[in-house]
Amino acid sequence: MALIVQKFGGSSVADLARIRNVAQRVARTVDAGNQVVVVLSAMGDTTDDLIAMAKAITPHPSEREMDMLMTTGEQQSVALLAITLQAMGYKAVSLTGEQAGIRTDRVYSRAKIISIDSVRLERELASGKIVVVTGFQGIDSLGEIHTLGRGGSDTSGVALAIGLNADFCEIYTDVDGVYTADPRIVPEAHKLPEISFDEMLEMSSLGAGVLQPRSVEMAKTFNMPICVRSSFNDNEGTMVKEEVEMKQLEQEVLVSGVAYDDDLVKVTVYGVPDRPGIASVLFCALADAKVNVDMIIQSGHRNGKNDISFTTSKEADGKLEEVLEPVIAELGADNFTLETDVAKVSIVGAGMITNPGVAARMFKCLYENGFNIDMISTSEIKVSCILKKEGAKDAVRKLHEYFGL
Amino acid sequence: MALIVQKFGGSSVADLARIRNVAQRVARTVDAGNQVVVVLSAMGDTTDDLIAMAKAITPHPSEREMDMLMTTGEQQSVALLAITLQAMGYKAVSLTGEQAGIRTDRVYSRAKIISIDSVRLERELASGKIVVVTGFQGIDSLGEIHTLGRGGSDTSGVALAIGLNADFCEIYTDVDGVYTADPRIVPEAHKLPEISFDEMLEMSSLGAGVLQPRSVEMAKTFNMPICVRSSFNDNEGTMVKEEVEMKQLEQEVLVSGVAYDDDLVKVTVYGVPDRPGIASVLFCALADAKVNVDMIIQSGHRNGKNDISFTTSKEADGKLEEVLEPVIAELGADNFTLETDVAKVSIVGAGMITNPGVAARMFKCLYENGFNIDMISTSEIKVSCILKKEGAKDAVRKLHEYFGL
Repeated sequence: MALIVQKFGGSSVADLARIRNVAQRVARTVDAGNQVVVVLSAMGDTTDDLIAMAKAITPHPSEREMDMLMTTGEQQSVALLAITLQAMGYKAVSLTGEQAGIRTDRVYSRAKIISIDSVRLERELASGKIVVVTGFQGIDSLGEIHTLGRGGSDTSGVALAIGLNADFCEIYTDVDGVYTADPRIVPEAHKLPEISFDEMLEMSSLGAGVLQPRSVEMAKTFNMPICVRSSFNDNEGTMVKEEVEMKQLEQEVLVSGVAYDDDLVKVTVYGVPDRPGIASVLFCALADAKVNVDMIIQSGHRNGKNDISFTTSKEADGKLEEVLEPVIAELGADNFTLETDVAKVSIVGAGMITNPGVAARMFKCLYENGFNIDMISTSEIKVSCILKKEGAKDAVRKLHEYFGL
Repeated sequence: MALIVQKFGGSSVADLARIRNVAQRVARTVDAGNQVVVVLSAMGDTTDDLIAMAKAITPHPSEREMDMLMTTGEQQSVALLAITLQAMGYKAVSLTGEQAGIRTDRVYSRAKIISIDSVRLERELASGKIVVVTGFQGIDSLGEIHTLGRGGSDTSGVALAIGLNADFCEIYTDVDGVYTADPRIVPEAHKLPEISFDEMLEMSSLGAGVLQPRSVEMAKTFNMPICVRSSFNDNEGTMVKEEVEMKQLEQEVLVSGVAYDDDLVKVTVYGVPDRPGIASVLFCALADAKVNVDMIIQSGHRNGKNDISFTTSKEADGKLEEVLEPVIAELGADNFTLETDVAKVSIVGAGMITNPGVAARMFKCLYENGFNIDMISTSEIKVSCILKKEGAKDAVRKLHEYFGL
C-alpha cells in the first residue's frame, strides 16, 4: 500500500462531468489498495472570473482581499469532489488549506508554505477517508488567508506529499508529460520518460509551463518524486526524480529539452552611476515590490556610468514604472525602457555539466540561422538567450533539430 | 458616534452595481461619524446555484460538504464589498466567520452561534476600518465550518451587534419594514413604525418572512434593537425593540398584524396507544432528526388510542417518512398521513394579553366567512389556525379588515 498525493488542475475539474472523471481515477487508485490525498485547483475559469469581477471594481484591488476572494474557488471544487466520491460509496472529506494544516508566511497573493501540520490529515487517512484538500492556499500564524500565486496548487501537492511522507506526488495536467520542447512549437518533440529535478527546474523556470518551479524546487530539496500525467488519458507520464542523470550521461544526452518563454519584459536602466551598492538599491527596491528578476546584465563603463538590463515576467509590468521611477531618481540614473517584444529560448540538460562547449554550439546554431542574441544567461545545466520575439519560435525548432532531440 | 451593524441580504448584493449601492450606503453611515460592521449574504442566487450543482451530483449530499461548498458564497461577497469600499477611499477589511470570531455548535447546515470572540473585530474597528463579515457561518471548536441554516445571516448580524455591544442592528432587505400583513396578499396592509420583539417573534415564526425568528429571539434576549429597512430606498424602516407595548395598548391596538404561511406539512399519526411517555418517544425521534415541530394536537381517546397531529416545515418533508416509520412500529401505532395542502393564518398583537376574547373574534370572523378551522394554537400574543390552503389567503384579507388594520 502506497500513500499517493494526486493533484488535479483547473481544466481537470472544469465541470461536474470532469469532476466525476477525477473521482473515478481517485477511486481506481484507492481500489488498488492505496491511500490517496487529492489536491485540487478551482474549477476551470473560476479564478479568472473572480479576478475579472474584482478588476471590474478597480484596476488594483488589494492583494489581501483578492486572496479572500480567490480561495473560494478551490473550496468549491474540493466540496464537490468529496460529494461525488461519497455518492460513489467512498469515504471522503474535504479540507481547506487551513484545516489541512498548510501554514504560510504573511505575503499576500504569493505566499510561501512554511510548514504542514499533518495531524488532521493523518487522522482522516487513518479513518479510511480519501482526503480532498484545497490547493493554492494556506493560512498564516494570524489566521489570515493567503494564496500561493499562480500554479501554487502544484506546490500544495508537493508540500502535502512531503508533510505526509507520501511515496510520490502525481500532478495531473492537460499534457501527458514533459516534452523535449513545446509540441505546439516543435511537432517532432517527444515525451521524456524521466527527467531530473534540476533539469525540470530549469525547464519550469524557462517557461516549459508543465510544473510550477517552486514545486520542483521543494520536491528536489526533500527528494519527493513527482509524476506528471494527463487527466484525460491513461498514458504513462514523466517521472521527475533525482536518479536519472547517470543514465542520460551514459547515453550522451547533452540536451534534454528546448524551452520557450515570451511571458517576459526586458527592462534597461541607462546611465547608472558606477558606485558600489548601486545594484543593490535597484534590486532591493524590486524585491520589496515583489518583482521577481530573472536575467541580469550590466554593460561596461561609459563615462563612469553603466547600463543595467534585466528581465522579469509580464505579471510585473503594471507596477514596474511605479517602482522604477523613484529608484532612478535616487540613483541619479538617466532613464529606463521596457521592451515586451522579446522571448527567451533555452536549452536544458544535465549532461552539460561534464561536456563543455554546449553553449558555444547553441550560439553557433542561432548565428547560422540568422538570430541575433540580445542577452545570455547560463547555469550548470542550461543556457538561455533573449532574442527578438519575432521568429523566436523558429529558433526553438532549429535548436531541437540541431541537438538531435 | 454610534456603532452600527448593517446586514444586507443576497438580493442587495446580487451584482457589482448593487454591491456599489451597499458600499455607498455604508460610506454614508461612516461619513455621518459612525463605526460600521457590515454582514453580507452571498450574491443573489449564488447559494441556490451551489446547491443545484451539488444536487446534480446526488440528491442527498452530506451536510458537512454542503457547508464547505455554500460558505464560499459569502466569502466572495465580503471580499468584493471590501474591494469596492477601498476603491472609494475607505479603509475596509473582510473577515470570514472564523476570523470574526463566530463560534458555533457542531450541527452542520443549521448550527447555532454559541459565542462571539470580538478581539479581532474590535482591533479592526479601532484601527478605523469598516469590517465586512460573512453572514450565515461560523466554525466549531474543531475548526469545522458550519452554516447557520437559511436566513442565518440575520442571526449573524444580531449576534455580532450583541458581541460588539453595538447601538443597534440594521437589517436591509427587499421590503422596507414590517407590515400588518403581506402586501402581496392584502393590498391595504401598512407598514408598522415599530413593533415589539415578542410580536416580531410571532410574526417571524408565522411566516411573515422579514426576519429570521432566531435572530429576533436573540435580539430579545439581549435587548438589541433591530431596524428592518429596504436597501433599495431611504424609507424609514420598522424598529423592532422592547418598549413599544404601552403605546400600542393605550391606542387599544389589539392586533398588530396578520400572518400567512403555507410552507408547512401537517402530519397525523393514527391509533397511538394511550400510554405515558408515548409522545416523548415520537417527538424525541423527530428532534433527533432535527425536524422542528410547530403546532401539536392530540385528539381524545378512542379504544385506548389517540390520534396525534403536528405541523412542520416543508423542508423536513423529505425525511419525515424515514423518521416516522420505525417510530410508528415501535409505538404500535396504526399509520400516519402527510398533508401539504394546508396553510397557517395567524393574528399577532401584544394587546391580546390584557384583552380576552380576541381569539373568539378571530374564530367568529373565519366562521362567518365560511372557513373551516383544522387546528388551533394560541400563545399570549398570537392565535394561529390551520386551514385548507385553498382560500386561506382570502382569510388573511378578511381578518385584516375585521380587526381594522
